[in-house]
Amino acid sequence: MAWNTNLRWRLPLACVLLEVAMVILFGVFVRYDIEADPHWPEEKKHRNIASDSENDFYYRYPSFQDVHVMIFVGFGFLMTFLQRYSFSAVGFNFLLAAFGIQWALLMQGWFHHFQDGYILLSVESLINADFCVGSVCVAFGAVLGKVSPVQLLIMTLFQVTLFTVNEFILLNLLLVKDAGGSMTIHTFGAYFGLTVTWILYRPNLQHSKEKQSSVYYSDLFAMIGTLFLWMYWPSFNSAVSNHGDAQHRAVINTYCSLAASVLTAVALSSLLHRKGKLDMVHIQNATLAGGVAVGTAAEMMLMPYGSLIVGFIVGIISTLGFVYLTPFLESHMRIHDTCGIHNLHGLPGLVGGIVGAVTASAASAEVYGHEGLVHAFDFEGVKSNRTTVVQGCFQAAGIFVSLAMALVGGCIVGIILKLPFWGQPADENCFEDDIYWHTPETPENLNYRPEDRAPKPTTS
Amino acid sequence: MAWNTNLRWRLPLACVLLEVAMVILFGVFVRYDIEADPHWPEEKKHRNIASDSENDFYYRYPSFQDVHVMIFVGFGFLMTFLQRYSFSAVGFNFLLAAFGIQWALLMQGWFHHFQDGYILLSVESLINADFCVGSVCVAFGAVLGKVSPVQLLIMTLFQVTLFTVNEFILLNLLLVKDAGGSMTIHTFGAYFGLTVTWILYRPNLQHSKEKQSSVYYSDLFAMIGTLFLWMYWPSFNSAVSNHGDAQHRAVINTYCSLAASVLTAVALSSLLHRKGKLDMVHIQNATLAGGVAVGTAAEMMLMPYGSLIVGFIVGIISTLGFVYLTPFLESHMRIHDTCGIHNLHGLPGLVGGIVGAVTASAASAEVYGHEGLVHAFDFEGVKSNRTTVVQGCFQAAGIFVSLAMALVGGCIVGIILKLPFWGQPADENCFEDDIYWHTPETPENLNYRPEDRAPKPTTS
Amino acid sequence: MAWNTNLRWRLPLACVLLEVAMVILFGVFVRYDIEADPHWPEEKKHRNIASDSENDFYYRYPSFQDVHVMIFVGFGFLMTFLQRYSFSAVGFNFLLAAFGIQWALLMQGWFHHFQDGYILLSVESLINADFCVGSVCVAFGAVLGKVSPVQLLIMTLFQVTLFTVNEFILLNLLLVKDAGGSMTIHTFGAYFGLTVTWILYRPNLQHSKEKQSSVYYSDLFAMIGTLFLWMYWPSFNSAVSNHGDAQHRAVINTYCSLAASVLTAVALSSLLHRKGKLDMVHIQNATLAGGVAVGTAAEMMLMPYGSLIVGFIVGIISTLGFVYLTPFLESHMRIHDTCGIHNLHGLPGLVGGIVGAVTASAASAEVYGHEGLVHAFDFEGVKSNRTTVVQGCFQAAGIFVSLAMALVGGCIVGIILKLPFWGQPADENCFEDDIYWHTPETPENLNYRPEDRAPKPTTS
Repeated sequence: MAWNTNLRWRLPLACVLLEVAMVILFGVFVRYDIEADPHWPEEKKHRNIASDSENDFYYRYPSFQDVHVMIFVGFGFLMTFLQRYSFSAVGFNFLLAAFGIQWALLMQGWFHHFQDGYILLSVESLINADFCVGSVCVAFGAVLGKVSPVQLLIMTLFQVTLFTVNEFILLNLLLVKDAGGSMTIHTFGAYFGLTVTWILYRPNLQHSKEKQSSVYYSDLFAMIGTLFLWMYWPSFNSAVSNHGDAQHRAVINTYCSLAASVLTAVALSSLLHRKGKLDMVHIQNATLAGGVAVGTAAEMMLMPYGSLIVGFIVGIISTLGFVYLTPFLESHMRIHDTCGIHNLHGLPGLVGGIVGAVTASAASAEVYGHEGLVHAFDFEGVKSNRTTVVQGCFQAAGIFVSLAMALVGGCIVGIILKLPFWGQPADENCFEDDIYWHTPETPENLNYRPEDRAPKPTTS
Repeated sequence: MAWNTNLRWRLPLACVLLEVAMVILFGVFVRYDIEADPHWPEEKKHRNIASDSENDFYYRYPSFQDVHVMIFVGFGFLMTFLQRYSFSAVGFNFLLAAFGIQWALLMQGWFHHFQDGYILLSVESLINADFCVGSVCVAFGAVLGKVSPVQLLIMTLFQVTLFTVNEFILLNLLLVKDAGGSMTIHTFGAYFGLTVTWILYRPNLQHSKEKQSSVYYSDLFAMIGTLFLWMYWPSFNSAVSNHGDAQHRAVINTYCSLAASVLTAVALSSLLHRKGKLDMVHIQNATLAGGVAVGTAAEMMLMPYGSLIVGFIVGIISTLGFVYLTPFLESHMRIHDTCGIHNLHGLPGLVGGIVGAVTASAASAEVYGHEGLVHAFDFEGVKSNRTTVVQGCFQAAGIFVSLAMALVGGCIVGIILKLPFWGQPADENCFEDDIYWHTPETPENLNYRPEDRAPKPTTS
Repeated sequence: MAWNTNLRWRLPLACVLLEVAMVILFGVFVRYDIEADPHWPEEKKHRNIASDSENDFYYRYPSFQDVHVMIFVGFGFLMTFLQRYSFSAVGFNFLLAAFGIQWALLMQGWFHHFQDGYILLSVESLINADFCVGSVCVAFGAVLGKVSPVQLLIMTLFQVTLFTVNEFILLNLLLVKDAGGSMTIHTFGAYFGLTVTWILYRPNLQHSKEKQSSVYYSDLFAMIGTLFLWMYWPSFNSAVSNHGDAQHRAVINTYCSLAASVLTAVALSSLLHRKGKLDMVHIQNATLAGGVAVGTAAEMMLMPYGSLIVGFIVGIISTLGFVYLTPFLESHMRIHDTCGIHNLHGLPGLVGGIVGAVTASAASAEVYGHEGLVHAFDFEGVKSNRTTVVQGCFQAAGIFVSLAMALVGGCIVGIILKLPFWGQPADENCFEDDIYWHTPETPENLNYRPEDRAPKPTTS
């Protein structure tokens, strides 16, 4: 493969055309929600609200900012672990997320916040746009190092669209609950990304195994991503839950589950190494599985010990996946998953969907109180006759719908991305910043760097 | 130039004298605002406030913390991109900001929160102090690598003073709106810094071009700064807006504008490189221009598409500035702008001032509602007769006042900083941590580092 | 010493056994507080609360997230400064904190939130668990590089237990105030850690002095930790203060104190170096002393100038400690304190306890108002007869109790950790990631790294 990877016209054109489209569509469709509109003081009187603190902004803004950090610093730095691909990891993630949130505001707006011909934006729209882009960041992990930024923009365009359709089917047709997105974000994002990378499979990448490994500082940069994801995951799973106890509970459950998966990820990482040594890949990824796996059930009465059990199990599953499943997928199924998203988002996402379905089925008026149960599962209007067991079945159906959308959508998008004019790198240029970035030249005054002042080690 | 750069007495004396002055002035002048005073419960009863959630602390504290991160981690790490000046970038930014916020609390307190002989502090004071220091961090970017920490403390002392006077003229005499500080922070800070660096011009710095470039990891550290600035900019532009819809709207507008400028910055960066490669300098800086350029108008009815348009345009302007204007300023106008603040804060700040003036002029009771218009522009008391067009003219006047203050103030401060006893580095020591920092010696056991264990590459 | 450091069975067993214990104990004891329970809507009606914004979640969640960042990124990265121990610093801190918060939820739950046989969790429980683990992170700094992760888990198990007992004695028996934990977290944590490292003293570590130093980038990573600790410390000291003015005031005081200690830390660092150069160790640590030293008094009427004075003094004490006391402790008292926690947490913690005692003694109804004084010091119920002077004496007693618990507890735990089967490293493997981590191999294609492309410097 010797495609032309010069992006001089392709990337600027893609960016400018997409952004012009955004401007036009925003101009036609996007306005402010009443809570962000100067008529808010009148609305307050009208709805008899005494205080600005009732503006949804104050309930959700701190969570929004945490989610925002997860998308841009969390995912961006998590993927810097490759030794010569850190600029691309953090830079392309920045680019696709900045485009994706705009397109998601439109898509989710048309499906969820469309009134009288206008999309009405509020802080909740911003959170949901970040969530949607989160699924693209997940998929990016599977193709990291093997695609051009133009391909990523195309993938983002399609994936956001499919995400929104899938989300609409789950939340508005099946009427499932998925506040932290185990199904809509993680399962969908992971299997979509895996399907794309399967379509784009390059058989010759085993020659560049050394470029697919990390170096000391790239691993340390990746820990910045890991820790911000880990710390802010409680905000992620609670950001769009109902005000009050639901947000509060989602935070507690996610905190517990994440803590448990750290312990089992460390345990398995040590156990599976010949000399009991820890592997940074597991610490960077499997410790986060607990957050994914309580995405659906965090706002439900999962109970703190239930959260610990979920975190316990997925910490193990995820680490096992890194050690055994990822090499198998690559060697036997032609699925090359650069970041191991199947272990961090795929399997834990499925577990999360199942845990959500079981927890919903097991809900009862005894545990939630009658009012609490109706409130927690929206058993009103069209759902007023639904029992918790039926809700659990619909939850389970949501998993399969997400999987189906991901596999079918991933195939189509993968084929589109295979077209030979998107500037994709040749095999020998994969996992290399140099092909898309003007990387720093070595200064001639290397002797100013203390590292080089020392006498060269005599042992080497 | 072979000045004495030993700071052993100068820096300690400067720090201790300034801090002692702070202690004395705080002792004489500074007290707590009623919302931070133990008499708050009585005040609540007095003002018939039912809940502690009405304490301004809960409306503003999350935004404050985000702004705080922008000043210390955002600006600090953004400037670590130089290959051997990262300690100074992050360390001196820390020092000047820590001093600057104290002095700003006093200066802004005297001008804005002075009651019965006392300055009354609240969380809003802390935000405004951080804002004020933000303009010093901007100016620091222009002189980065060429001044001593003593000079930076002196510059901070004067710049905070001038900032506060300028802010007073704009907000209290011209009665303009500038919640995100396009004029007061960015325009003022940038042109002040550029004037200072013009006065301090060193013709021989082209010999150290290699030291003014980055290396791989220094660029990656700088991305930490970039991303925290980018992510938290919505908090910056909304932090002191009115409660309710204004804060909410400012967040939405800033979010949109920033997203757009990422796309156009990437587009231009690729377009302007011979092989279409991206330049980290543009990704680190021009992506932020959207936040600067909606600083004034973010809380107004700029509309989401208006924000996209602003971000679109300044992303282009800023990248063009880096490619064409910065080299021109250096070669033809003796203005050496280390970080390119003219492109990130200067030009986008001017755009922001203009956008603010236009948006204010175009405001109408139809769009804002009558009550909303009065509330948004404080058309009460002395301003009760002001029309939106007049407001727009005053906004425009604010740009020129800020520019004038920056140029005149920058000249004076530049001349003061030129005095030969502040410990400034010689030309050949510019952009070098070694002169002011005890940098780590190379350990003799370099062979412990895995990087050195490998056989040396045969190709070099 | 040639102990067996293979952790293959020890570490997995320790992690899994501890986590299974957590699951069982959580299953038996832990439930949700009413504010995180689906019965919250009923409770709201019952307590006549109009709005969800009265749920404690919205008062404390932003502070909680900041504290969470301090524990995991703050402490984790602060300790990455060692040149070859960064994986362990950030990774083991992650492990011990993830276990510690679970055990702290149980311990503190039994002592403070135990109702009808159940521990009831809320966001305040999460904050307190993070606080408790903070004291373990402090102690980790003393033994950094010299213990195995198994030892750290054992230390965490015991230290969390002792912390909770000490906290119970102070807060519930002596009825002292210590919202920011100068005594309970910093004094206790530091002297506990110092006692443990004294017991574990290894006389031969002076041979590995070079491994105990930093390199350029490890120092820069450590600054990430420093800055997040510094920026979020106002949240730390205010997180569990009373709603309203107390939280507000604690933030202002901490902000001021931290700013002052930056100035004096820089002053002393320069003054104590032969050529006036700054030392990164002081900038990384002594700048934070101001936060520790107002931990007890931040919510009291310390006054802004009082905060500046405290920060001023401890910035000096802390830097002096690094220069003179740490070497003395190591050479004369067999106390090897890797991170210098005595200077950052020990001495400033003692100062904080004293400042708290003095500030409490000096409290009066004139300054606080009668209602404010009762509210600030809980002078109700069993404390209704306590005067402020008596309160001050109890505060002072709290310092001695914390010290006693730390010294006795540290001896016992140190002796337990000395048992020869915890996988501790041999002297020659201390401060080395390689022994516990699968560190990245050097790739053969080193020539892909621009740093190596340049001609070798001719001067070396």
